Amino acid sequence: MQIAMIQDKIVPIKELDPVYLDRGIFFGDGIYEVVRSYDGRIFTLEEHLQRFANSLSAIEISRVDIDRIRSRVLKSFDVAGISNARIYFHVTRGSELRKHLSNPDLEPVFFLTVTELEDHTQAKTKGIEVSTHPDWRWKRCDIKSLNLLANVLARRDAAAKGCAEAILVNEAGLITEGASSAFFAISEQTLQTAALTANILPSITRQFVIKAGGNIGLKTTEKSLTPQQASDADELFIASTTQDIIPVVKFDGKLIGDGKPGEYTKLLIRQFLSLTA
Amino acid sequence: MQIAMIQDKIVPIKELDPVYLDRGIFFGDGIYEVVRSYDGRIFTLEEHLQRFANSLSAIEISRVDIDRIRSRVLKSFDVAGISNARIYFHVTRGSELRKHLSNPDLEPVFFLTVTELEDHTQAKTKGIEVSTHPDWRWKRCDIKSLNLLANVLARRDAAAKGCAEAILVNEAGLITEGASSAFFAISEQTLQTAALTANILPSITRQFVIKAGGNIGLKTTEKSLTPQQASDADELFIASTTQDIIPVVKFDGKLIGDGKPGEYTKLLIRQFLSLTA
Repeated sequence: MQIAMIQDKIVPIKELDPVYLDRGIFFGDGIYEVVRSYDGRIFTLEEHLQRFANSLSAIEISRVDIDRIRSRVLKSFDVAGISNARIYFHVTRGSELRKHLSNPDLEPVFFLTVTELEDHTQAKTKGIEVSTHPDWRWKRCDIKSLNLLANVLARRDAAAKGCAEAILVNEAGLITEGASSAFFAISEQTLQTAALTANILPSITRQFVIKAGGNIGLKTTEKSLTPQQASDADELFIASTTQDIIPVVKFDGKLIGDGKPGEYTKLLIRQFLSLTA
Repeated sequence: MQIAMIQDKIVPIKELDPVYLDRGIFFGDGIYEVVRSYDGRIFTLEEHLQRFANSLSAIEISRVDIDRIRSRVLKSFDVAGISNARIYFHVTRGSELRKHLSNPDLEPVFFLTVTELEDHTQAKTKGIEVSTHPDWRWKRCDIKSLNLLANVLARRDAAAKGCAEAILVNEAGLITEGASSAFFAISEQTLQTAALTANILPSITRQFVIKAGGNIGLKTTEKSLTPQQASDADELFIASTTQDIIPVVKFDGKLIGDGKPGEYTKLLIRQFLSLTA
């Protein structure tokens, strides 16, 4: 008899809840997004849904209706009634007995959570420390997939060094991005961040940071930095959906500027917030 | 209220089965193994358990007792009573609300299936066709992790070309291994396969193939092949736990030898089988 075992409990395969056979867990065969709300309004939902559709298409998960995903997000946000919420959702290729090549008729699985956003006030006002880690990720980081072990390991390494984020450095010695954020430097009134390639997630927050930068008179250069260039920058910060902009005050142990959030970074935080209203 | 949504069903987070919050699905934050039995005996269980322990250690999942894993494997194999079985098992870092940096007290989750092994007679006697695909995997393929989307996408590409396996080619133009197998060539009485590095899974079947090769008088060279060298080889085959040795008769559309399984490959299949008894 074909069976499964969960911790020490044996279950005949036929009685097993399909969630245990999700291709998301066997292979990371799925796509996710995270959106957040500011004061009861979800920010850039359409941009996130578009990226979600692009990622699904890149891994050939078809038969997912984006209008239906939008309805589910809106409905769950409404039911949760959380003003500053983090909304996470993923779609996997489906559930079946494990095999690399899936049954083509498999039904995709949708899962979502709406949770309270943690408070980032301290990180925003004091800044954070970051450390570098080799970028061990796969070669299609433009796809927002569930294969995130390299990111998790980099974050664990950073935490062991007392740092709040890992900044990933590729084999060419260039910074790609943070383990769960985009990475920016400011020097001589110019914002600098890596150009979008197959090795970089097309961050939606990044677009709005660049827009906010333009609004306060910063130019933008899309060019990768080396760790040395980053540690020599006037100001550094990371950017992500849930935290928007967080100043970086120490990079691999070296103080950035005077060790306090930079003036342009503080202006950017306010400017970014005005774009979310 | 914090909630989850599964397809269209809304559930308060507090009532959600923890399986939905498994870090295996959110991040692929776990390690797996596959062992098989031949006629009622599990083959190389200790070697697989050792590799499992190595992989767990590499991603810093601690507090997993390998003796307990062995007992669970043996017990479930006994209960299932399947003579030629595939035993899959994984351990993930645990279940909790999604965040990259896990709670250090998290309890690892164990999951296992025992299923009937499919019959590979046809593939073994007729051989298979394979096609190449860029190796998009992460930089720590020596760790047998749940991050397998690159492997899945490569297999989908192979299937679309009518091929049974994808052979992965790195950025240097060298073959690393198959999407779920090791890859071997035979030319001039020499077995050739890639050397073990951080980009190659330390395959246990590979060790036994090399041993079987020695037994039938083949030398071994551990050196990567280019696709051109592979298609010029006398014989090709793939090797994996569940299929052991499968001859390759077509490589990227080019016939290998006379398009039938090679003589040494056939000898190796018999020799390998004798090692499993």
